[in-house]
Amino acid sequence: MEYFPAPLEKLVEQFASLPGIGGKSAQRLAFHVLGLPLEEAQAFADAIMEAKRTVTLCPVCRNLTAGGLCGVCASPKRDERTICVVADPRDVMAIERSREFTGRYHVLHGVLSPMHHVGPDDLEIKSLMERVAVGGIDEVIMATNPNTEGEATALYISRLLKPFGVKVTRLAYGIPVGGHLEFADDATLMRALEGRREL
Amino acid sequence: MEYFPAPLEKLVEQFASLPGIGGKSAQRLAFHVLGLPLEEAQAFADAIMEAKRTVTLCPVCRNLTAGGLCGVCASPKRDERTICVVADPRDVMAIERSREFTGRYHVLHGVLSPMHHVGPDDLEIKSLMERVAVGGIDEVIMATNPNTEGEATALYISRLLKPFGVKVTRLAYGIPVGGHLEFADDATLMRALEGRREL
Repeated sequence: MEYFPAPLEKLVEQFASLPGIGGKSAQRLAFHVLGLPLEEAQAFADAIMEAKRTVTLCPVCRNLTAGGLCGVCASPKRDERTICVVADPRDVMAIERSREFTGRYHVLHGVLSPMHHVGPDDLEIKSLMERVAVGGIDEVIMATNPNTEGEATALYISRLLKPFGVKVTRLAYGIPVGGHLEFADDATLMRALEGRREL
Repeated sequence: MEYFPAPLEKLVEQFASLPGIGGKSAQRLAFHVLGLPLEEAQAFADAIMEAKRTVTLCPVCRNLTAGGLCGVCASPKRDERTICVVADPRDVMAIERSREFTGRYHVLHGVLSPMHHVGPDDLEIKSLMERVAVGGIDEVIMATNPNTEGEATALYISRLLKPFGVKVTRLAYGIPVGGHLEFADDATLMRALEGRREL
């Protein structure tokens, strides 16, 4: 026999289909939503559709926006001559939090990954080339993740950018701030030594 | 400045308001939903409202139902003379999975908890008394959780049931099947010894 009424089973299944949510968690979440006041449940359902309906990509940098230019591209205070290339909109947020970067972004929406059949045409590489081709860009900072795929993507794009004569840089490698030397892996330590600076 | 467009921030907040979902997970879930095809996102939003709209309590046992009697109360195969009292609809599911119980249920929707200001009137105790008062019940099995609040609730209800002359029983305590003796706590082992049976 069925344990739960069908609409509840369906809601549990919906939650279970989310990444990182197992069966037990899905049940817990579905029961929580079922226990919410009607207007709060409605607000949740509305938030899903509202986000789906209104969130699009910025026509310039391909970051997420609620229509028109994204906040960074729309801001006159941001340096137009520097573009920081990231794989994901969440990386934009991470860099913004550091309050160090004052330029613009370009979001690739992924990295090159032959294993997962992701090629250059699946990423926002063409739109980046078009931005650089227009001119007025001094530096492109490759800020993809420091792993194999992120490296390969950074290298691939840096080669494509060569003919345009812009400076292409890569984020520095090294020991993370607040980390412990003894827990740093060999590759990181090696890069930290290579990139050592005079005090 | 804002890192994400407002509708996305709102969706992240909605996910973060769910129990056991932290900020990072909420972000991950919101991005996942944003990446779903429109019809799948719609199905998710619909599942929430469908469950809220159609799932009600069974008029007899107070278990969840999609309208009318719940599956157990509607089944002519279930023994009407035995009622198993549980705290939560999920406990019904747990007991049904054991395929051992053939009677009916009564869902309290909580346990007595003075600490959390939950008194008898906040639980489905009155409806249980009414069922028993009608007659035709031989046994009430108290299947609340084996903790302080579950015990107190079982004891409280068993006292209320005394005047009706029905048999009131409690789930057996003991070592869990498949468990290890060495990991069993003292209280459980004591109860397992007390409740030992002849082979």
